[in-house]
Amino acid sequence: MAQNNLRIIIIGGGAGGISAASTAKGVAPEASVILFTEYEDVAYSPCGIPFVHGREIPSFENLFLQTSEHYAEIGIDLRLQTTVTGINLGNRTVSVGSQVFEWDRLIIATGFEYENPNIPGVDLEGIRYVKNIRRAMEFDKVLDQVKKVVVAGATPIGIEMAGNLAHRGLETHLVDEEAWLMSKVADPDIMEPVQKSLEELGAKIHFGTKVLEFKGADGKVKSVSTSAGDIDCDVVVVATNKKPNNRLSREAGLKIGATGGIMVDDHMRTSVKDVYAAGDCVEVVHGVTDLPIQGLSGSHAYSQGRVAGANAAGVDRAYDPVYIPWGMVGGKVQIGGVSMGETLHKALGIPHFVAVAQGISRARYYPGVSRIRVKLIADPKTLRVMGAQMSGGEGIKERADFLAFAIKRGATLDDFAWMENVYSPPIGALMEPIALAAQAGLAELKKTGHMPPKFAGA
Amino acid sequence: MAQNNLRIIIIGGGAGGISAASTAKGVAPEASVILFTEYEDVAYSPCGIPFVHGREIPSFENLFLQTSEHYAEIGIDLRLQTTVTGINLGNRTVSVGSQVFEWDRLIIATGFEYENPNIPGVDLEGIRYVKNIRRAMEFDKVLDQVKKVVVAGATPIGIEMAGNLAHRGLETHLVDEEAWLMSKVADPDIMEPVQKSLEELGAKIHFGTKVLEFKGADGKVKSVSTSAGDIDCDVVVVATNKKPNNRLSREAGLKIGATGGIMVDDHMRTSVKDVYAAGDCVEVVHGVTDLPIQGLSGSHAYSQGRVAGANAAGVDRAYDPVYIPWGMVGGKVQIGGVSMGETLHKALGIPHFVAVAQGISRARYYPGVSRIRVKLIADPKTLRVMGAQMSGGEGIKERADFLAFAIKRGATLDDFAWMENVYSPPIGALMEPIALAAQAGLAELKKTGHMPPKFAGA
Repeated sequence: MAQNNLRIIIIGGGAGGISAASTAKGVAPEASVILFTEYEDVAYSPCGIPFVHGREIPSFENLFLQTSEHYAEIGIDLRLQTTVTGINLGNRTVSVGSQVFEWDRLIIATGFEYENPNIPGVDLEGIRYVKNIRRAMEFDKVLDQVKKVVVAGATPIGIEMAGNLAHRGLETHLVDEEAWLMSKVADPDIMEPVQKSLEELGAKIHFGTKVLEFKGADGKVKSVSTSAGDIDCDVVVVATNKKPNNRLSREAGLKIGATGGIMVDDHMRTSVKDVYAAGDCVEVVHGVTDLPIQGLSGSHAYSQGRVAGANAAGVDRAYDPVYIPWGMVGGKVQIGGVSMGETLHKALGIPHFVAVAQGISRARYYPGVSRIRVKLIADPKTLRVMGAQMSGGEGIKERADFLAFAIKRGATLDDFAWMENVYSPPIGALMEPIALAAQAGLAELKKTGHMPPKFAGA
Repeated sequence: MAQNNLRIIIIGGGAGGISAASTAKGVAPEASVILFTEYEDVAYSPCGIPFVHGREIPSFENLFLQTSEHYAEIGIDLRLQTTVTGINLGNRTVSVGSQVFEWDRLIIATGFEYENPNIPGVDLEGIRYVKNIRRAMEFDKVLDQVKKVVVAGATPIGIEMAGNLAHRGLETHLVDEEAWLMSKVADPDIMEPVQKSLEELGAKIHFGTKVLEFKGADGKVKSVSTSAGDIDCDVVVVATNKKPNNRLSREAGLKIGATGGIMVDDHMRTSVKDVYAAGDCVEVVHGVTDLPIQGLSGSHAYSQGRVAGANAAGVDRAYDPVYIPWGMVGGKVQIGGVSMGETLHKALGIPHFVAVAQGISRARYYPGVSRIRVKLIADPKTLRVMGAQMSGGEGIKERADFLAFAIKRGATLDDFAWMENVYSPPIGALMEPIALAAQAGLAELKKTGHMPPKFAGA
């Protein structure tokens, strides 16, 4: 099935591009695979950057996962610091300045960029974004010289940066227009322990506060002007939302979706034959709502890259709609979930019932035990679980993976209420917190007379 | 549906009996619920006992979860230190010596007992079993006075005791006839890191060694005679296999199954109308093999008690076949799984394919990262996963819960290979170890030409 002697070109060296290149080469070893990236490096973990700044991880060197030589060895022609300047869909070429490269298959993995805050002062020295590892290395040296930092935006990266910079001992201000952390995706009760933890680390959180201007002197940022007054600072971390980086694709004429991501089908094929796309630059189908969604995780980019690379090289591999397990550490607290929480279901007007409970991660007498709050958002008629959010404890990532898998396959509150679970004092409680949440939900439905007939006997 | 004024009698105050009593009372608040137990206490965690001996947990007091008064408050008539001496199925009564109690519904939750080693010397002073908390409190004082312990049997409880007693600083010998730890249920490669960890804690492990006799002087044990010579000791912990404690049920004429457990249907109903049973005294259906199985976890006993209690009180609640997620800590190493491992599939002659990989629990550069070995045992024709075993890392309990849920619902290697997973450096790696194992399995099937046609495109 795999075609050989193919010329495959990949634009982008992040998780999507790298996995596409490796997979394509694996499927079609005789194919020529060229990967262009404007950056100096590939195959490092950008997600680790905040933790090096926070000195949880000793060095940026730790973040490199593979050497460039490794890719040469497996036959991938890596072109570092090489910016693709144009895509020609008719001629089936890409341009790098005046150089032209022909392709039989093109895979676009141009990733994300931060939303421009579009306020005065964005070009001042000291306004930083967390993305490229070389810039992070430079920024880390800057951080040695400064005392006060403003993080603009209580997004996931904003929260990771605020926690880590506070942990490093800097005076850290986290500024956000909304009333709680990660308000676009997470529920307030889930984020409350994160807020407390950030404050315990010393971060100052400014809710309901709009960033209006970055003010400077001698070209350097000196303060952030907000709707609640000025905050002095030496540097600013801009942590706005991520949006697809698709100028090239747009100029080339590929179809762009409502979210701003490149439109792809279930094989990661774009609107043009033999052109694939993967990662943060695309939009994919959200399994629960059937709506397009963009801006997922490195793990999603990696999987999409595998699918795009395999299909480009001649295999028939589908990419399923996504249910989006997510998880992170905010301050010292684990949070995570699947698909959407209560807030988003409410905002979108989706009928929903929330089953919630607090459980524990180990036997309650065992050292290291911690609380876990679990919320399951279910369809009130079928009791199918549509989403989940959790905070606290340990094992949030594993629970999110589990819930995503189960939700994708139509699991109901009843299924979770009667799930089997491990019980062993050092690693698990008698009752799994997910089961407790489901049981509490069923009990409430029964008490309030809202139990769907199908489950009336439960 | 629930019937009131019922007289419900429960025999046994462990997880099964206590959950049956609480659930029955919840469903039928007007019912009279009497619970008999021969012991001094209910609602403590026997599973915590080894960890108090090991001084991981400061005191036996920590293991008590509820007071007896709590049960009186919710209307359960608790009869402590009261041994039921007979069950009369015709008269619908139980006897406590000369006293007779009538029931409309009877729930039997008489738990397990250790298999009798049936060798000379079992009645010597210093021969101990881990079961009752009062005996454990006494034993803990004895442990303050001794130096050398033999643990007879590398069963789960034997391994927990050996690790904890070594951790306490005692000269600890773990003796087992077989060639690796937990050989009846676990695979040797899974148990190898546990063995290393126990040895690092100072435990001496004697494999291939049969215990022949407990030898004593003045009625006290002084050594254990084995097929490989004598081992001096001050006390012996007998950690034989657990078997159903069902003398009463057998004498009463209830049907007993091939495993020695009381036979129950999918509503925890015994062979006699209005008589239910739950917990370690019963056998239930194993979801993968459809064969009866006994001797599961406290969590299973608790769930079975809920079902028995609910049905006894008038609700219609089924108990599904079990897939048996399990997990524990051996030495310092987490192990766990679902259903059966490679060894048992082989022993039972079930066609199977093993997909195996080693993954990591966090980003590989993040402090606290550890390795996780995952083995998925799949049907070679359908690629449906039938069982799993894991060791290492963190999150084994959560993964076992997940795998049990997914296996019950027919998940294949392909489903796991393409599962979505959380990626966040402090809590999860780019690729989930379960997915890596499935991917490695598929790659091997492809390479060796054994991929079933349905998955040929993968």
